[in-house]
This record gives sequence, C-alpha cells and structure tokens, in this order.
Amino acid sequence: MNESALFFNTSTLDDWLQEDIGFFDLTSTLLEIGSRPAHIAWVARHSTIAACTEEVARMVLSRGGEPESCLSSGQTAGPEMPLVTARGPARALLDCWKVGQNLLEYACGVAARTRTLVQIADQIGPGVGILTTRKHPPGLRRTAQKAALAGGAFPHRLGLSETILVFPQHRALLPRGWADIREGLARHRRHLVEKKIVIEAADFDEACEAAGCGADVIQFDKAAPDLLAGWCPRLRTRWPGLRLLAAGGIHAGNVAAYAATGVDALVTSSPFSGPPADIGVRITPA
Amino acid sequence: MNESALFFNTSTLDDWLQEDIGFFDLTSTLLEIGSRPAHIAWVARHSTIAACTEEVARMVLSRGGEPESCLSSGQTAGPEMPLVTARGPARALLDCWKVGQNLLEYACGVAARTRTLVQIADQIGPGVGILTTRKHPPGLRRTAQKAALAGGAFPHRLGLSETILVFPQHRALLPRGWADIREGLARHRRHLVEKKIVIEAADFDEACEAAGCGADVIQFDKAAPDLLAGWCPRLRTRWPGLRLLAAGGIHAGNVAAYAATGVDALVTSSPFSGPPADIGVRITPA
Amino acid sequence: MNESALFFNTSTLDDWLQEDIGFFDLTSTLLEIGSRPAHIAWVARHSTIAACTEEVARMVLSRGGEPESCLSSGQTAGPEMPLVTARGPARALLDCWKVGQNLLEYACGVAARTRTLVQIADQIGPGVGILTTRKHPPGLRRTAQKAALAGGAFPHRLGLSETILVFPQHRALLPRGWADIREGLARHRRHLVEKKIVIEAADFDEACEAAGCGADVIQFDKAAPDLLAGWCPRLRTRWPGLRLLAAGGIHAGNVAAYAATGVDALVTSSPFSGPPADIGVRITPA
Amino acid sequence: MNESALFFNTSTLDDWLQEDIGFFDLTSTLLEIGSRPAHIAWVARHSTIAACTEEVARMVLSRGGEPESCLSSGQTAGPEMPLVTARGPARALLDCWKVGQNLLEYACGVAARTRTLVQIADQIGPGVGILTTRKHPPGLRRTAQKAALAGGAFPHRLGLSETILVFPQHRALLPRGWADIREGLARHRRHLVEKKIVIEAADFDEACEAAGCGADVIQFDKAAPDLLAGWCPRLRTRWPGLRLLAAGGIHAGNVAAYAATGVDALVTSSPFSGPPADIGVRITPA
Amino acid sequence: MNESALFFNTSTLDDWLQEDIGFFDLTSTLLEIGSRPAHIAWVARHSTIAACTEEVARMVLSRGGEPESCLSSGQTAGPEMPLVTARGPARALLDCWKVGQNLLEYACGVAARTRTLVQIADQIGPGVGILTTRKHPPGLRRTAQKAALAGGAFPHRLGLSETILVFPQHRALLPRGWADIREGLARHRRHLVEKKIVIEAADFDEACEAAGCGADVIQFDKAAPDLLAGWCPRLRTRWPGLRLLAAGGIHAGNVAAYAATGVDALVTSSPFSGPPADIGVRITPA
Amino acid sequence: MNESALFFNTSTLDDWLQEDIGFFDLTSTLLEIGSRPAHIAWVARHSTIAACTEEVARMVLSRGGEPESCLSSGQTAGPEMPLVTARGPARALLDCWKVGQNLLEYACGVAARTRTLVQIADQIGPGVGILTTRKHPPGLRRTAQKAALAGGAFPHRLGLSETILVFPQHRALLPRGWADIREGLARHRRHLVEKKIVIEAADFDEACEAAGCGADVIQFDKAAPDLLAGWCPRLRTRWPGLRLLAAGGIHAGNVAAYAATGVDALVTSSPFSGPPADIGVRITPA
Repeated sequence: MNESALFFNTSTLDDWLQEDIGFFDLTSTLLEIGSRPAHIAWVARHSTIAACTEEVARMVLSRGGEPESCLSSGQTAGPEMPLVTARGPARALLDCWKVGQNLLEYACGVAARTRTLVQIADQIGPGVGILTTRKHPPGLRRTAQKAALAGGAFPHRLGLSETILVFPQHRALLPRGWADIREGLARHRRHLVEKKIVIEAADFDEACEAAGCGADVIQFDKAAPDLLAGWCPRLRTRWPGLRLLAAGGIHAGNVAAYAATGVDALVTSSPFSGPPADIGVRITPA
Repeated sequence: MNESALFFNTSTLDDWLQEDIGFFDLTSTLLEIGSRPAHIAWVARHSTIAACTEEVARMVLSRGGEPESCLSSGQTAGPEMPLVTARGPARALLDCWKVGQNLLEYACGVAARTRTLVQIADQIGPGVGILTTRKHPPGLRRTAQKAALAGGAFPHRLGLSETILVFPQHRALLPRGWADIREGLARHRRHLVEKKIVIEAADFDEACEAAGCGADVIQFDKAAPDLLAGWCPRLRTRWPGLRLLAAGGIHAGNVAAYAATGVDALVTSSPFSGPPADIGVRITPA
Repeated sequence: MNESALFFNTSTLDDWLQEDIGFFDLTSTLLEIGSRPAHIAWVARHSTIAACTEEVARMVLSRGGEPESCLSSGQTAGPEMPLVTARGPARALLDCWKVGQNLLEYACGVAARTRTLVQIADQIGPGVGILTTRKHPPGLRRTAQKAALAGGAFPHRLGLSETILVFPQHRALLPRGWADIREGLARHRRHLVEKKIVIEAADFDEACEAAGCGADVIQFDKAAPDLLAGWCPRLRTRWPGLRLLAAGGIHAGNVAAYAATGVDALVTSSPFSGPPADIGVRITPA
Repeated sequence: MNESALFFNTSTLDDWLQEDIGFFDLTSTLLEIGSRPAHIAWVARHSTIAACTEEVARMVLSRGGEPESCLSSGQTAGPEMPLVTARGPARALLDCWKVGQNLLEYACGVAARTRTLVQIADQIGPGVGILTTRKHPPGLRRTAQKAALAGGAFPHRLGLSETILVFPQHRALLPRGWADIREGLARHRRHLVEKKIVIEAADFDEACEAAGCGADVIQFDKAAPDLLAGWCPRLRTRWPGLRLLAAGGIHAGNVAAYAATGVDALVTSSPFSGPPADIGVRITPA
Repeated sequence: MNESALFFNTSTLDDWLQEDIGFFDLTSTLLEIGSRPAHIAWVARHSTIAACTEEVARMVLSRGGEPESCLSSGQTAGPEMPLVTARGPARALLDCWKVGQNLLEYACGVAARTRTLVQIADQIGPGVGILTTRKHPPGLRRTAQKAALAGGAFPHRLGLSETILVFPQHRALLPRGWADIREGLARHRRHLVEKKIVIEAADFDEACEAAGCGADVIQFDKAAPDLLAGWCPRLRTRWPGLRLLAAGGIHAGNVAAYAATGVDALVTSSPFSGPPADIGVRITPA
Repeated sequence: MNESALFFNTSTLDDWLQEDIGFFDLTSTLLEIGSRPAHIAWVARHSTIAACTEEVARMVLSRGGEPESCLSSGQTAGPEMPLVTARGPARALLDCWKVGQNLLEYACGVAARTRTLVQIADQIGPGVGILTTRKHPPGLRRTAQKAALAGGAFPHRLGLSETILVFPQHRALLPRGWADIREGLARHRRHLVEKKIVIEAADFDEACEAAGCGADVIQFDKAAPDLLAGWCPRLRTRWPGLRLLAAGGIHAGNVAAYAATGVDALVTSSPFSGPPADIGVRITPA
C-alpha cells in the first residue's frame, strides 16, 4: 500500500513552515550562518516505518534546499537510517529542521503502530483488514491517514459525505427508531446504488434490527471479542452477504482477539495516539 | 492560567469543519432528520481538564446552532460532566459532533496530562515551572498550546523568531565553535536587549562554555536528574543571574526527580502524546 | 431531499463577493445612494426550483443587510415568486445583487433540469435513481451538487477518495488487464468492507468480466437503451446481488428510455449545462 | 486575442485539484498503478477552440508530471487533435484526469460558442464587438473570461469597481430619478476622467434621458433589433460621440440581427451556458 | 464621498489580527486581566479625517467586544475626539489595541493628506479632481484607497485589467512604436466601447502622437506646470473631447500650480507616504 | 545583518500579484505584445539600500520569467544600479512591473532610512541598537521588518505572544496598580525563565516602580534625551543588570541625542514612514 499519493496542497506545507518559523530564524540570523552550505539528515533512532518523508522533501525544496534522498512512505527504516537528507544554504535547512522532525515523529509513530496492528492481525488470519478512523485532532486528517496507509491500514470513512453510517445518535432523533431507519433507507435505496449502508450496533439484537433495515455492514461498537465470536457466524448464516466490522477500543493489546472473532475488518483509532517516533536531526557543514 | 484567549481565526474553524463534513452529512440527509430540533452534550466520561471548549461552541454557532453551556478552558470537569451543550436544528449539531469530540479528546487529554505534571512539580517545590515545547504534529500549535495553558503550563518558545536558542546543530556550522558563538552574540548584544539568550548544553562543561558566551539561560538536554542536581548549585554560584532549564525526555514518571534538581523550569513535550480523553456525545430530540 | 445542508465556508462566500465587487461599487458610491434604506427581491420570472437561496441570504447578512424571506432549496417557485428578499442600506443589497442573481440563475437552472429528469424517471418506475456526476467546471462542485440535491437527484461519487471506480483507463495501465484488476481487488478486499466496487463497462462482455472480478456495481458507459434492456436481466440472473448503472449521454430526451432499461440508477451530467433560470432583481426604496 | 495571460494563482489550481481528489485516488492506490510510467492526452472529439489548456498543463506539473504539448488558448483544435499531452507517474496524470477534462469541456465549450458569435457578427460588419458579461456562476469569472477571450470576445465590465454602469435599479433609489443621476454624475465628473459613464436604457426615450445626463455609452437592455436599428442613427446624429451597446438575450440565433442594428458592440452571456465540449482522455502506458 | 463601502473580507481582518497577536497576548494572560470588563477609545490627538474606523469596529466585534461608537470614514475628527470606542472583556480590547491604532494611524494620515490636496485644488478651481494611484506597498490597496476616498479623492486605475493605459514601456516593445499603438488600438476599437484609452506622454509632441493614435485621455508624466499650462489649451483646441491628466511628483507643495494648468485631474501617490496620524489609545476599567 | 531570510509564503506573493493584475493586463493584451521576448530592470535612481529584491525575483519566476540578477537585501545600491533584472515573455515582466516597483520603493525606502539611523547611532557609540517597532499599517509586518533588517536594525517585539511588555494601559486595569503587577509577575516567574520582563515607564519614578516589580528592561516612552541621560546612570547603579530602552518619537533628527543618553537601544517606528525610494523600471525588447 505504499502506492498512495495523498494530496497535500502548497498552502498546507507553507502554513506548517510559517507556524514554526514565525517571521524568520532569529538564532541563525544572529549567528550569521544562513548562507553557509550545509547538509541535513533526519534519522530514525530506532526501527520504524517511513511516513510523510515526501512532504519533508517538498518543504526543503520550497525553501531553496535540494533534497538528496528520501525513503518512500511505507518503507521500513532500520535504526540510524536516514529518512530524508538534503543540502543547501543553512537557512533553508534550519527553517525545515523542527517542522520536518515533528512531522516525521508523528507520522512514523502512527505508521509503525499501524504496521504492528496489521502484522498481528495477519498472523491470526490474512483476511482481516485494519481500518483507521477519523478520530484525531482536527486539522490532522491528511497526515494521520497518509501515515496509516504507510503502515498498511486503510482509511475507514474520511468524512460525513462519503458513506452512510447510522449511529444510535441518529436513531435517537427518529420518533419511531428502527422503523424510521428502515423506511428512510428504503425510500432512498435508488440513490445508494454505489454506497454501502453501515449501521452501528451494540449487540446481537441491534445487529439483527440493523440487518433487517437493509444494512450492508454492521459495525459493532465496543463488543467484547468472545461475544462477537458468537454473533458473527449466526449473523452470516442469516444474512449471507452481510459484512461485519468491530470498532471501539481496539488496540495492540487486544487486536489478536478481535481478529479471531470472524469479523471482516477492525476499525481502530489507536495508532493515532502513542509516543512519537524518535527522529534525530544531524546538521553538518557541506 | 485560565485567562488565555488563544487566537483561532474563522478560517481555521471552517477548515476543521470542512475536513470532517466534506460536502454534506449524507446520513442525516438520507434519514431526513436535519431540521428536527435537537440537543447535544459533549460529556467527559472521566475527570479531566476542559480545553478548547470555546472553539467547540464557536463551531456550533457558525453552523446555526445555539451554544447553551460551555465549561471554560482550564476548569476541572468531573466524570459525566458536560463540557459543552447546545441546541438547534439537528444538522447543525451533527455537523459539529465528531469534530468537536475529536478536538475535546485531544485537548482535554493534553490539558489533563499537563495538569498532572504541574501538580507533581508543585509538590516538590512551587517555584518550578512546566514549559511545553513545539514538538507536536505540524498544524497543531494553537490547539496544543491552548490545551497546555489550560493545564497550567506555559509555552516554551513558539517559533524560530521569538527567542535565541542556540543548539549544537548551530555550533556545528560555525568553524570556530564556541568562539564564534561568543563573538556572534557579542556583536549583536545591542539588538538583544529584550531577549534572553538560551543555549542548549549536554553537560556541565558545555554549560560553562555557554555561560561564558553570554547565555542568560542554559537548557540542559537529556541530562540525568542526579547529575543535574550536582551541576545547578555550582553554576548558580559561578553565574548568579543564570537561569536553568531541563529538557529532553521529561514525563510524569520522572518529573518529580527533575523538579528536585534545582532548575528553574522543566521543558517537556510529553503532554502532547498519550491517550485522548474519553468524551461521550449525547444527542437527543429537543 | 430538501434536507441537505451542504457546507459552504465563510471564505467561499467572501470570495464570490470579492470576485464581483472588486474593491467597491463605483456606481452607487458616485450616486451617493449607499446608505439609503432599500429593499431587494430576487424573483423567478418562470416556475423553477429554489436552490442556493440560503447562500444568497448569508451573503446579504455578511454585508450588513437583513434577509427577510428565503424559499428553501428544493421548494418549487411559481412565476414571479420571490426566492429571497432582504432589506438594509442600499450598498449591502447592491453588493449582493448580481452575485446573488448569478448564483440563483445557475443553481435554480440546475435544480429545475434535475427535477425534470427525476419526474420523467419516476413516471417510468419509482425505483430508478438519478445520480449527478462531478462533470462541471472546476470550483463549482458544492454549488452544482446542492442544486442537484434540491432537484431531487443524489450525487454520484464526489471525488477520487470516496469510492472505487475502475475505468478502462485504469485497465490500460495494467499489463494483464482484467486479471490484474481481479487480483488487485482480491488483495484488498478486506480494506473494502465499507465500499462498493464499481467497474465501468462498455458492453455485456465487459460487464461479465467486471462482475467476475468482484464488482458490486457495473456502470455502463454510453450503451444504447435497447441493448441495456437486454443485458440487465441476464446479468441480474447470473449475479443476483449485482447493481447496475447507466451513464454517458443521458438527458431529458432519453431519460425515459434509460429508466425503462432495468438499471438501478442513471448517472448524468446533463442538468449542469443548459440555460440559466431567469431571475429578476427588484430594488426599491424602503 | 490569444495573447491574454489571465492570472490564476497557485491556490486556485490547488483548490480545483483538492475538490476532485479529496484525500487520494482510492482506485489507483488499490490497483497499485500509481508509480507506473504513463502518458495522457486530452483530445477534442470534434472541432473546437482551445481554452485553459495552459492551466491543465500547470496542474500536471504541480502533481509531478511533465507536460509534453499544449495547444495555446485561442487556437482551433480539429477533431481528434490533442489539446494537452503529458507523461509521468500514473498517479500524477490520474489526479489531473477529470479536473483537466472538466476544465477543458467547459472552457472550450465557451470559447467555441464565443467564436461562433464573433464570426457571425464579423460577417455582418467587422466593426461590431462581442463583449461577454459577468453572468455565470460565482467563482467562475477567470475561467469564463479566459475562455471568452480565447474565442475572440472581450470582457464587458469585470466587477463593480471597474466602470460606472447605471441601472434602472439605481434610479429607483433616487427620489428625483434622472435629475439625481444627472446631478450626481456632474458633481463627480472630475473623478471620472479615465472612466466612461454607461447608462442602461430600455428604449429611445430613456436613451435620450441618459445621454442628457452625460452618458458616454448607452446600453440597451432587451430592445428588439428592428427598434434598435431605428434608434441608433437618431441617437448618433443627436450625440455624435455617443457609443451604443445592445444587451439582453443576445445569442447565436439573433446575433446577426443585432450586429446589423448599428450598435458598436453586443453584450452577451450566451457563450457561458450550453453543452460542454466533448473531450476524450486517453491514458496509456509510457 | 463618504458613501464608499470598500469591501474587506473576513479573512483580511483575521489576518491583521493574527499578524499582531501571534498566538495569544502573553502580557494580559500573565497579569490575569483578560476577563475584566474594560473600555477602549481610539482618540485622534490632533485634527484629522476618520478612515477605516469601520474596520476597527469589525475587529473588536470579531474578538467578542462591543463597539460603542464609530466616526464614519470621511468625517473630520477634532483633536481629542474619539474615532472608535468599545467595551467588553479586556482581552478582546487588548487584542485589537495596536492593530486598530496602526490601521487608524496610517488610514487617517492618508485621508488627511488627501483632504489637504483636495482642498488646495478646490481653491484653484472646483473642477480639478484628485486621483490616487496604486503606488503603495503591495497588500495595502484596499486600506490605501479607502483612506483616499475618505479624504475626497478618487482612485485612479486600481489594476491592470481595469483600463487601457499605454506607457512608454509598452511602446518600447513595439517595433514600429506609435504606428503599432495606433493600429493595435484601431484593431480593438470595437472591444473598447466601455473603456477610455489613456496614453502617457512626456511632452506636447508625444501628446499629439497619442491623440492621433486615438487616446481619449493624455496622462502627462512629470511635466512642469508652466509647460503644461501652455500645452493644454492647444490640445483641447485640436482635440475638443480630449481629457488631460497630470501625474508624477504632484504633492501638497505643487498641487496648486498643477491645479491651475488646465488639466482635468491630478494623479498623485503623495498621500500614501508621510507621517502617520497620532492616535492615542485609552483603556480603562468599565 | 544581511543574513535574514524572512519567510514569505507563496500565497502572499500571489496575493500581491492578484491585487495589482486583477484579471489580466488589458493593455498588453490589446497591444498583442505579451509573448514578445523582453528584458526588465528595476533600477535605483539614487543611492539606497536593497530590500525585498528576492521577493521581486520570486514573483517574476512565478509568472514564467527568468530572474537574471538580484542585489541581496542589505546591500548598498549606487545610483542607476539595477536592483533586479530579468528576462522572459513580456507578459510575465509586465505583470510584475508595478508590484515589484511598489515593493522596492517601500522596502528600499525603509531600509535606507533605517541605515541612516543605525549609522548616526554608531557614530555616537557602537553599543546602541536600533530596534524597529510593529507600528505600520496592518498586513505589512513581513515587508517592513525585512526592510528594517536590511537596513541594519533589529525587530522589537513582533507580536503579543513574543514578550512581556507591560504598558500603563495594562496597569489601568489592575485595581492595585503596581502592586498587582509585582504580584502577577512574581506568581508567574517560573514561567518566564526564557523571557525578559519589559515595563514601559514615563519617568524616573515609574522606572523605579517597574524595576521594583522585577522588570528586566525599562522602556521609556517619550522621555526627553536630557532627562533620560540623567536617569540612566542612577538606574544602572541601583539595578546593575537592568537594561534600558528609549521609545517614542525617535527619528533621524534626534537619534544622536537619544543614542548619547546611555540607554542600551532605541525603539523607533520612524523608518516605516517617509518618501518611497525612487525606483525606475526599464523594459526593453530582448
């Protein structure tokens, strides 16, 4: 899945630089080192998964430096392996130093945690996908999803206009509950030819209600793995085409148990939080 | 420190909404619930520190809902206590649901972890400040710092143009090392009347070099607490006005030890990563 | 489907105003009428479908006028019926005059043409959906889709990251053609739990290939209605769950024929071009 | 008139790409074809006028592809003639495919309809200009006017701050009507040295009023060609320097009649709506 | 001319605030005065012309304060007269303090210098207009022109797409010089019905060449007043409809001389530079 | 200090171009000279200090021209010396002509006035710095500060979040005045390790109060040089580490007197206003 070329526009990268630079780099200006030829290397201090390296290279280029090497997002970086290297006038490299480091620390951290989940799930059975949610701080969607893709996961819905996902909170606003959902979906079935209908359920009974309403996919929220393992075969028997997702509180510590329940994929936010990767930055004269 | 009114412009909040909404909320459109009167409450499922609640209220308002209550950033929220509540047409509230939840989960998580560090440090001695770095994913500076301020910390430098902070990476670009730093700073002393000169040092010898170059503040990077405890009094004796910072790898597990070393403040990125606060969202007819 | 609240951010409406105003309204400045109290009405000169009226009202409000009435998007406007009315200082109303008129002329035109397609298709059989494509000039997606929703259609995919849609152009890049598509989709099936796989086909044989590759939906491009009518039952017999779309050159003149072919929905760009609605603007002293 | 280099800034092209791509191209990512070398050609399926080809080439370049050929805006494209061709990694080309096609379909359509109007008018008499209005959906001004320029027309006023254009709607806000217009214009005559005063008139009497107020140009709105043909010589006799425009409902079907009336130029919005040009896109391995 | 409502969009005002605030007001946060009720008054320390006061009030409102009074742009402010007053939480007012002061100091300074030029010219003869150029630092056009309008001037061309203005620099690129200009303008005369053709000339001979090419207006650059006074009647005799402008180095010290030359209007950049108005800011508890 | 690389993002330069170009260059389009090969030179008509030349070169490049030479910001330009030269199609150069000229006229003007202040102060004693304030029209911070840096000054605080600067206006909001300042600063001393505390004072007594509150720096506002000369030694004796600034009304006419008072640096806004540098633009065929 290292094929993804997630779209970051010019102004996003410029905004990141401006957030960190402010007006100008006071320290290098005072030390009068801005025009000295220099070399920079962002180096992983431990084994990790490269992610958002391409954006670091683009930032260097936009400041007037020359990227030299760039490990593609999705590749494994061994300890002390450079993720990105570049050369150019010191000011170009110093402007990108911390913002590049911060980007790589977050993105490689997410990618590596994602890769772990994928590998554990693969050991249980190769058919269970890892889907990453949109639960991360606002403004981070592109970074977070590029990193998750680099780790081998795939994005769960990326926004409200992409898929139908009926939550209990929607049901609470409908006076007749499940009946209104069934009728609402039936009324618009012709509009949903390209879309799957996903309904969140808390337990087996809700899953049956949801399937009866026409759900293509049931997304179980916070169901225990042992209960889920019991429900899945019964649901598949009754609705053969039904696809099943487990969501809510899935992490490296329980992903194996969830992967063994018989669902089709696991929906998780866990890679988005955790320690950043430890990325060192070496700056030397060139 | 709940006085801070960190500036978020209109387009930032709009960008957050657009990132999550995309074009429109497909599910509520299909279920035809958009114009039903509704009520929403973002509720902390455990005790936490409110942060960025004001921005959630502003987003609701911008979509046509009416904020009803809003715990100020910096206040403690007990379990099951609503952080923000609002009413209005369902579409206004559903558009803000997840983006509000994501914002609060990150910001309250950062604020609560910050508060813990502050409280531990305060038990050791009330004079030790907690300063939060700019090490977080690009694009998150305002959110991260507003949350840290809500937790009782204070921002370390917010960008390159704010303070002089000389790193070993700068020194590496100067042919004569410390001598060039000393001369560079001396040459510009008249420009630095309002600024303190901060120099990062790895150990006692480097700290002495730095102080000799005219540093107002030494920032120790990754020095062990016991070593630091030995160095601080010697440095203060020799340079009475010198201020001392410890940075690098400081977290809840070692903050007490660092707070006892005799430095003036601790520089930390640790609140920025960790589990999000658990924020539930209750949506009901109104 | 008049429930939709498509998201337009503040800067989009500001950009529209600035595009038309430039710096300031030279004519009303010279005539010194800017502060006179005035009333404005955007009036449909013929029967049409209201669309993007809410955005006109928002623009008036942002310039300091007070919207008075606003026919909701999706409602039918009889001839000479006001779509939006407002009062305020003349300059606020004059600034919005043409940009509001231009918006309504395009959006109501699209909505009315869409409504016509929907009504013709409904007469043939109520189960055939009208899905509107993303084929319109760049920058117009939100306007075009809000108008199409107001007319009773529903958006086909809104962008590249929303659904899988395999075109012949993709196949041309795969050395083994259909075999590579089948294997590629199989390899990622676990990632596609929430997504339907849509494959474009030119004829019955390609449709069979596509279904054999695991397509959930076949989208026929430019197939003649009579051929399509023959293919649909054969495909549905062989792959009972398969959904079928017709696309390419569908318009008011042939929509009835296409709606009778037995496909589930019709994919069309035709409402996006055609004459604008004729919207008059009455400005009077108030 | 193929000299025009209408200014499109970087963020406009980026916004167009982002509108269509969303986050990333799901299909090519899944099929793992993103890095394959490919070639793309946007080809006119019928004779048309090239327009906005330069912007397609710029988008390809910004995504990392290499434009190979580009027919300049304003040139005639014969059937099956490539408008733009490029090569590069498939993902760069696929990202630009539809947005480029949509841009060319709209812009070439406008340019070709404009060229037709220009040619018809030229057959009547070479001195009659075609001026294109600002009546098109908001957000489209640059695209629409670049296309109209490519077709041989010229923009009528591009915004409120560019020229004085007095409409009946302005007059309605002045208690003394024409008298107030005359006095207002007289009061500011010294400010209007560089500007012409254009006044819209419905008929001969209004035109005389307008000329008496100091109009440099009369713009007739929806006057029938035969009436206009009678008024023009009388007006020119009475006010020799007066210039005359016909506007309102001018299109390919009546442009010859209007061109023969004796006005100086025809103001029209008709090229902005109509069928898009039919542009095919060929993507092949390279 | 105090009717003008120059369009400033929301993001411009937000950008101004962000430029000055950065992240948050450190001083008021530390002093914990942000939520105290306060009152602010921006006061002219000397007689001046109010300009951009409306934008100061809008900024206060956007930060959560309540504007109380606002002298309209164009009104005369006596010494110690408040231009804008507001109340609200101290943080809202302190955030706007300096940016409001900076805006008023520049804009009132420009407006007052403009007013002086207008008054001097009016004493010579009421028919000579003052037109302000686009020669000011990039990014300042709206502020500068709103201020100039407040002072009683009127904008000369606001950008390249607004009028035809042929400079010697254009002529230098044409192999046949004046002949090419004459032919180029003749070729496009039908496109220029609404536009005047302005040609810059250095002296009488160039003015004759320009008028012979079809210029509607001659703009003399840096011609001495006495020479100009000789040329004007000769030109008006020969080309009765010709309008005449003087530009280049016109300022308060020579405006009377230029106003007496017989030109129609004076084109000047001089109000844009000069000392800022002296605006005091009083902040008190409320 | 010609090392500074102040950060201007792509959209700032694009906005400057769009502000001046509007839609397209009407004149060169009509004269059909856009594609002719041309050469441009921005030339100082008198001796000045180059500033923002790099941004002019970047604009030329972004329009498709090729910068040929560029005097670095901070270098001295003799009379008739080109600041920036470039070649390319005429349209690229004509689009940048005035916006480049305007930028250079303002920036070189500021830089030259700054250089004068710096040189006068240096003659009095090399230890007195010139610090430039943030008092300039909103939107101009980057341009103004880059120019001031080019002239040899250094920026005073660039925004509210950078330093602590207590004004009388803050004191007015504290019920107990100085006492509240002292306590507020003491309460947050641990947060201010990296920051200096600057307090504005009107006279000697206020300076003593401020120093007693813990000020690191006293900024005198509008104190007469002779009084200041008396206060400085007394303050330095009493608070040996205290740094002293003079601000308010310092300009070329009194900078020598202020530089001789014994303060550490002078805070001034005076370079930001004054006549623009006179920059000629030569455009020739190439």
